[in-house]
Amino acid sequence: MLELGEIPESHPRRASLLARKKLVEASDAGLLADSAMIAHGRGEAFDYLLGEMTSDSASRAIKHASKMLVSAKSPVISVNGNTVVLAGKELIRLAAVVGCPIEVNLYYRTSERISGLIGVLEDLKSEVLSEEAPEGFNEDWFSSVSSVEILGDEEDGRIEGLEGPRSICSSNGIESSDVILVPLEDGDRCEALVSLGKKVIAIDLNPLSRTARAATVTIVDEVLRASKKLVSDALLIDEDVHDWDNEAALREALEIMGSAMSRV
Amino acid sequence: MLELGEIPESHPRRASLLARKKLVEASDAGLLADSAMIAHGRGEAFDYLLGEMTSDSASRAIKHASKMLVSAKSPVISVNGNTVVLAGKELIRLAAVVGCPIEVNLYYRTSERISGLIGVLEDLKSEVLSEEAPEGFNEDWFSSVSSVEILGDEEDGRIEGLEGPRSICSSNGIESSDVILVPLEDGDRCEALVSLGKKVIAIDLNPLSRTARAATVTIVDEVLRASKKLVSDALLIDEDVHDWDNEAALREALEIMGSAMSRV
Repeated sequence: MLELGEIPESHPRRASLLARKKLVEASDAGLLADSAMIAHGRGEAFDYLLGEMTSDSASRAIKHASKMLVSAKSPVISVNGNTVVLAGKELIRLAAVVGCPIEVNLYYRTSERISGLIGVLEDLKSEVLSEEAPEGFNEDWFSSVSSVEILGDEEDGRIEGLEGPRSICSSNGIESSDVILVPLEDGDRCEALVSLGKKVIAIDLNPLSRTARAATVTIVDEVLRASKKLVSDALLIDEDVHDWDNEAALREALEIMGSAMSRV
Repeated sequence: MLELGEIPESHPRRASLLARKKLVEASDAGLLADSAMIAHGRGEAFDYLLGEMTSDSASRAIKHASKMLVSAKSPVISVNGNTVVLAGKELIRLAAVVGCPIEVNLYYRTSERISGLIGVLEDLKSEVLSEEAPEGFNEDWFSSVSSVEILGDEEDGRIEGLEGPRSICSSNGIESSDVILVPLEDGDRCEALVSLGKKVIAIDLNPLSRTARAATVTIVDEVLRASKKLVSDALLIDEDVHDWDNEAALREALEIMGSAMSRV
């Protein structure tokens, strides 16, 4: 990681550069698929158009999604390599608050990457155990974090509608879930999950992607920013879940990006 | 390269997937910097907004750039890893038509990557030697291609205004050039070249980048599409070089992208 060097605290794009650095390291460690870095670059471009901040529209999607997770019967957080690298720790905190498992589930599944990413999450979980509970969390943090299951290598479930290794999942995770948070998911899988009647919350910076359009609720935001806000919103005692117009939310995201393109 | 598998001839995004496959292979071979794949992903996102085709505005920029190259005193084509991988062959054809050297010049310079990329270009040059001349080329193709110099490891020139390894260049290439084609260049270097009084032609899919804004002529297009068109335009007997309004061209590119974002 000589190339990125040390990133000064004051650098205006520090968060973006840190994310890139973490991905390069994870890629070198064999944790990511070949296409992971390219996918991240695409995300960077869309986030650039968003001004690298959470829009009001995304904030509403996050609030809605957090209510869906808290009120679900069997929620689950499905993560891939980029998600673990970029927001693993925050999603363990979210799982502890929501009381749900995290499942490592990969589009390009290999047992090496599955076990590597489970290892990373177990390490992050140990770190989170010794940290402070998020503000507003009134239960026992240590025991809540301890009981977060890291799933992914059971291979005892299937996603109907998909074929081959991409259909493999955990029976106690994705298979039996009613609400799934899937950051950075591919379009095929998102559509398959929705057609099984599950409520799918996607985090996707491209409002035109198949995933963004297929999901029940699409959060058009960077995964770490969105994950942090999901944790705090899940702890708000708030109004009930209302109807959600995902198409309207996508249009709002597009408008923000469109106007960014025409300023210069 | 199991992951991308075989890409069917009929696939609507075949060109984009082939480009990705070539980059992954080059990255595995150690030819690219860590950030190369991420940079490519950013380009993919912007090209997606362009509809993956050369706009009228980019066509005009290409025509103008080809005239600049043909009428230059000491033109040079400066290439980095992604450029060699994505458009190396077309740029050798362009160099043969224009009668100029190609210089491998890297932002993250290592002697291994410089010599690796020079090797790739020498192999591509052998292939181009035995291919047909482009339509409209009336000189001897074999001798024109043979005389294309591949520079980059001389290290006997400097780009004033830059520091450390990034300032190194070839005295017969970038240092003595009056017109430089620099696809996919970084902002610092583009600005330094312009401030030395050189005319810089950039190929950059992000019309908001520092490179795009600093260049004399910015071609907002995918590097392979643009390179192909540069070859054919360089062979047109055409009007003289007129004034060029690069800001207007960037605004046009932004308008196209902006309108792509608001269709759904």
